[in-house]
Amino acid sequence: MPKPVDFWFDFASTYAYLAAAHLEEAAAARGIETRWRPILLGPIFALHGWDTSPFVVYPLKGRYMWRDVERRAAKLGRPFRRPDANDPREFPQHTVLAARMALIALDGPYGKEFCRRVFFAEFEEGRDISDPAVLSAIARGAGLPADLADKATTPDNKARLRAQVEAAKELGIFGAPSFTVGEELFWGEDRIDDALEWALDEQAC
Amino acid sequence: MPKPVDFWFDFASTYAYLAAAHLEEAAAARGIETRWRPILLGPIFALHGWDTSPFVVYPLKGRYMWRDVERRAAKLGRPFRRPDANDPREFPQHTVLAARMALIALDGPYGKEFCRRVFFAEFEEGRDISDPAVLSAIARGAGLPADLADKATTPDNKARLRAQVEAAKELGIFGAPSFTVGEELFWGEDRIDDALEWALDEQAC
Repeated sequence: MPKPVDFWFDFASTYAYLAAAHLEEAAAARGIETRWRPILLGPIFALHGWDTSPFVVYPLKGRYMWRDVERRAAKLGRPFRRPDANDPREFPQHTVLAARMALIALDGPYGKEFCRRVFFAEFEEGRDISDPAVLSAIARGAGLPADLADKATTPDNKARLRAQVEAAKELGIFGAPSFTVGEELFWGEDRIDDALEWALDEQAC
Repeated sequence: MPKPVDFWFDFASTYAYLAAAHLEEAAAARGIETRWRPILLGPIFALHGWDTSPFVVYPLKGRYMWRDVERRAAKLGRPFRRPDANDPREFPQHTVLAARMALIALDGPYGKEFCRRVFFAEFEEGRDISDPAVLSAIARGAGLPADLADKATTPDNKARLRAQVEAAKELGIFGAPSFTVGEELFWGEDRIDDALEWALDEQAC
């Protein structure tokens, strides 16, 4: 068996959205299992001294990123819709509740579908994914129980998300999407193939 | 004819080194002309408030970058040698003379070979490419005239390099390697295929 590939993401990340759209297909084609690991980039970016997305901190990079994501989404056949990057309600969105819900959802069979639907709602339909009602509707649509948002906000589950962010830091993760195979780190949606090939090579060793 | 692809680089950039190693082959396979455009990242990074490489400013990104470049060089079959990133003489190197020499060399048929040899000397042999003697030896080896370094430091040529950096800024370039097809910008060694495909698609329009 190839090693599993861990996919670390924050729902606010545009490139994580692209990764979510095509990771499973690429992994399944190689017989590789993926494990989806929602995190929050806020505490990680704080290590760099940033209090928001680097695409807001560095406007030139931001301008490029929107165009690049638009092009890559078109390649994947996804109807990406550019948010208003000057409106902090549109980008980066607050993702803590979505991440907490995803953490629980991913314990069961509908978790990845929930995550994809959250990303698509955010970056294709322009929905506000910090809104509990929006998230609960997505959860129901993905086949998840109605009380997911309530379970997500228990002290235990909050602590679980914090622990997952700490685990990401310990792996040296500094952005999203990131992929890990054991302790080997790959950063960026454009490293999916590198990560999957690494997982296959590890198997051979 | 497909549109040409412009390749913007600073000799201090590790990912530009990787791009220089395989861009020509990828472009030639698609019948695309490349135009190599040496620049200096210093004045561009200054726009972000950085006085050195972002891989020095952000150590977590730096640590990842060295590992990532090592892996990608191995894929390309290149004998990358990691410099001492804590020694400012080793990384990032001072590249102004190399860029000025490349600017002239690229007017003729040996320019790209000169550039590749500079990158390989720096990132595979650990040479100091700020040293005029090292650069002159590389130039001779690439078939260029012995007085290239002298010609490179004329006021006219210095102004030419400054103008090229300004042109890069006007295109929205914020790092290297960057690739442009007309005004369409692609950033990163991992966007070579995207840029080449764009050049081919432009032809069809």
